Amino acid sequence: MTDIILVGCNGKMGQVICRLVDGDPEARIVCGVDISGEKKNGFPVYTEFNPEIKGDAIIDFSHPSALTGTLEFAKSANIPAVIATTGFSDEQKKELAEASKETPVFFSANMSLGINLLIQLAQRAAQLLEDSFDIEIIEKHHNQKIDAPSGTALAIADAINDVSKADNEYIYDRHDVRKKRSKHEIGLHSVRGGTIVGEHSVIFAGQDEIVELTHRATSKEIFAVGAVKAAKFMVGKAPGMYNMRDLVAEM
Amino acid sequence: MTDIILVGCNGKMGQVICRLVDGDPEARIVCGVDISGEKKNGFPVYTEFNPEIKGDAIIDFSHPSALTGTLEFAKSANIPAVIATTGFSDEQKKELAEASKETPVFFSANMSLGINLLIQLAQRAAQLLEDSFDIEIIEKHHNQKIDAPSGTALAIADAINDVSKADNEYIYDRHDVRKKRSKHEIGLHSVRGGTIVGEHSVIFAGQDEIVELTHRATSKEIFAVGAVKAAKFMVGKAPGMYNMRDLVAEM
Amino acid sequence: MTDIILVGCNGKMGQVICRLVDGDPEARIVCGVDISGEKKNGFPVYTEFNPEIKGDAIIDFSHPSALTGTLEFAKSANIPAVIATTGFSDEQKKELAEASKETPVFFSANMSLGINLLIQLAQRAAQLLEDSFDIEIIEKHHNQKIDAPSGTALAIADAINDVSKADNEYIYDRHDVRKKRSKHEIGLHSVRGGTIVGEHSVIFAGQDEIVELTHRATSKEIFAVGAVKAAKFMVGKAPGMYNMRDLVAEM
Amino acid sequence: MTDIILVGCNGKMGQVICRLVDGDPEARIVCGVDISGEKKNGFPVYTEFNPEIKGDAIIDFSHPSALTGTLEFAKSANIPAVIATTGFSDEQKKELAEASKETPVFFSANMSLGINLLIQLAQRAAQLLEDSFDIEIIEKHHNQKIDAPSGTALAIADAINDVSKADNEYIYDRHDVRKKRSKHEIGLHSVRGGTIVGEHSVIFAGQDEIVELTHRATSKEIFAVGAVKAAKFMVGKAPGMYNMRDLVAEM
Repeated sequence: MTDIILVGCNGKMGQVICRLVDGDPEARIVCGVDISGEKKNGFPVYTEFNPEIKGDAIIDFSHPSALTGTLEFAKSANIPAVIATTGFSDEQKKELAEASKETPVFFSANMSLGINLLIQLAQRAAQLLEDSFDIEIIEKHHNQKIDAPSGTALAIADAINDVSKADNEYIYDRHDVRKKRSKHEIGLHSVRGGTIVGEHSVIFAGQDEIVELTHRATSKEIFAVGAVKAAKFMVGKAPGMYNMRDLVAEM
Repeated sequence: MTDIILVGCNGKMGQVICRLVDGDPEARIVCGVDISGEKKNGFPVYTEFNPEIKGDAIIDFSHPSALTGTLEFAKSANIPAVIATTGFSDEQKKELAEASKETPVFFSANMSLGINLLIQLAQRAAQLLEDSFDIEIIEKHHNQKIDAPSGTALAIADAINDVSKADNEYIYDRHDVRKKRSKHEIGLHSVRGGTIVGEHSVIFAGQDEIVELTHRATSKEIFAVGAVKAAKFMVGKAPGMYNMRDLVAEM
Repeated sequence: MTDIILVGCNGKMGQVICRLVDGDPEARIVCGVDISGEKKNGFPVYTEFNPEIKGDAIIDFSHPSALTGTLEFAKSANIPAVIATTGFSDEQKKELAEASKETPVFFSANMSLGINLLIQLAQRAAQLLEDSFDIEIIEKHHNQKIDAPSGTALAIADAINDVSKADNEYIYDRHDVRKKRSKHEIGLHSVRGGTIVGEHSVIFAGQDEIVELTHRATSKEIFAVGAVKAAKFMVGKAPGMYNMRDLVAEM
Repeated sequence: MTDIILVGCNGKMGQVICRLVDGDPEARIVCGVDISGEKKNGFPVYTEFNPEIKGDAIIDFSHPSALTGTLEFAKSANIPAVIATTGFSDEQKKELAEASKETPVFFSANMSLGINLLIQLAQRAAQLLEDSFDIEIIEKHHNQKIDAPSGTALAIADAINDVSKADNEYIYDRHDVRKKRSKHEIGLHSVRGGTIVGEHSVIFAGQDEIVELTHRATSKEIFAVGAVKAAKFMVGKAPGMYNMRDLVAEM
């Protein structure tokens, strides 16, 4: 049983964590810390950290401005901290790195467990299938997204490339080119439409068979699942920086 | 019950027709015409047309060189002819048109019932959803295909455009463009890999919902289904040229 | 341009309508009616109906208790009313029917445009493919849903059955049965997991080809799209009851 | 470069191997052994094994009756043997086991690389996601298949169960049950239709995200890819029995 201290418990993501942990026999929230102080759930809520607070791991889903307080408490109480907020300044990133010398700190650019798993599985598949399968990536996002391909699609392609024998070329357009596909292409296709939150498919197409690995997100709340997983993962860890790819690799 | 005269009954596609009709309570093959003359199935096989041959419709899956013989017989016996071979010269196409003045002739660039249905359904969906949904097309083919997008993908896009209020722009690449999707784009994505025979998906992405219409072919044998459907469709038709989109529209 | 009077404009669904209409060149909201009276958007908001209010169609996304007020106004001003709330008593349903004798009223058990389109397309495909394709339906919903199959999956199967020559049997389990599929089965598969809002796929599997029609909802907000469509559809209609399948059939 | 001796080179699967190796820079066929003796490809073909034949690995895609000859040659020449034929008697299986004491022998119930990879990836995903995701398996096969679920679907479920903390119950039917999904179910859905060769999807559905792993076969030729992979894998191995799951696990 992992005892979680939930910073920002009354915020939107904090409440998602609460619902998630409710159905999880291996974790519980022992207390919350939130500027509002309102007791929305079955655990006590403090407006500030204090030495009475005990637990196995901290999850901070509050706000970048709360970082210093959370890290100070983590160091003083020697409790691992999962920092699930984003948008830190360079100075704050240094603060994270400094704190990790004294206490275990988990911080990840993409807190989605599913996406990080997808990357690992795609690498595994690429290692095994590379010789005889062609690799293509399709990502789908809403019509307001201005960049293409998505950062995650590129991260998947790069991760595949890292384990490839060849240096693959990324292909974004085949229209009017009139040539056969090369073995060392990775096709990247950016579908845009409606309000799609995010979908990534990696296709391995071979001789009369296809392996397809897909991740589909329907809200930003997916980061909550990753944070709970990270909290369990961090229990008993030595001081240092940890991230979601470490978690996926070690489990 | 439609009585079919099957020209080229001993060829690969002829045999596919036989298997298909075996399980169809509304059609049967009354005789075959084939240069080999071998009796592979439960019906008589002739090496040439003769006036004893009776039936409701002819399906010709033999060879372009057999065209004249089939059309002569169709005219003389006044039986509708479904010409399922391809690769005709311009002169032969004229021959088809001439014959259609005397007897009903069915000939279609794409004999797949499924693809022609997909086109009709995509038009229907576009008419209804156009205002509030974004349209994207993904096609997937084997790694030896040199053209992109596929002719069928373009045919789908053109058919959608035909029923659109706006003139849609076809977009093949969004990489590094950095702008939001316009309402009047149709994205076309060409995935290439392995031995994929042919897959076409039309995606309508709207406010929190998606409609996706997909056709997947796993062999060229799909043209057999279209041919049998065409034979039934042609029974009792007046002289003239008919094709698969007529069939789909009328049924 | 359709001028919409939006009842319940400050509610969750009302605000979804506002965002949707913002990007629609064929519709605008001329005023809102809401008990809160707050002006959240660029149009005036009234707390009650009054004779100054003019428009082409009413959309009511407020609350069942507001029904009488909305219908009285619709009748007096002779403006079509799209009633997008649900959960009416039998008495209220009679009220709807009564009002529709004097003014056009739109009310639908499922306001999703996409689902009603899917049903129409599935019927179309079934008519054409029935003889030579097998039909299966997969629906996916969250792990809290207690009924299976979903009402929508059954509605799709029933709609296919309505256009079938045969009377199809619905099959829910093939485990340990050890027999070939009959031609007159419709397989219905209920996947349950996570927080899936709702997905329905109709598969037509034939000789070496598959046609698959899929609808995927990611929130209940999809009913907003249907309501706006309905408002446009109702302009100029004669008194009577209208629903989403009429809309899909007529457009 | 792996030098392959291809037994049954002129058969259907033998020719698939030839096409596959043609495009593979890491393997080549140095000679074939086939009762027909015809030279269909660019390498010599013998009608019997002889001591002149040299190579790094044998692939035998000929016929169960050829087993003894292949194993005798493998032992005498000390070359690893990939036995890709199936349908062996119990006596022949003993023969395989006996031979493996002297020379490395590869034999697998399912020679598909893709399916064995899918099983490995599904186990990996289950280990990581089990706590917070629900697992469902959909398999699709042609309408002539009499058993359900497929052996492969059960193998996937069993493999997931092997790495699960809980003992999962397999659920085949949810129709009319009226209860929420339990955390320890694995739903198994058997879609039957048309000529589908074989498709398996493993769905992990969590809080607002889904990971889906799919394998789709379009012909039995997929076993050829596995055989070539196995040949490369076997070079330099010690005597013993090897199979496709070993290969996938070790690579």
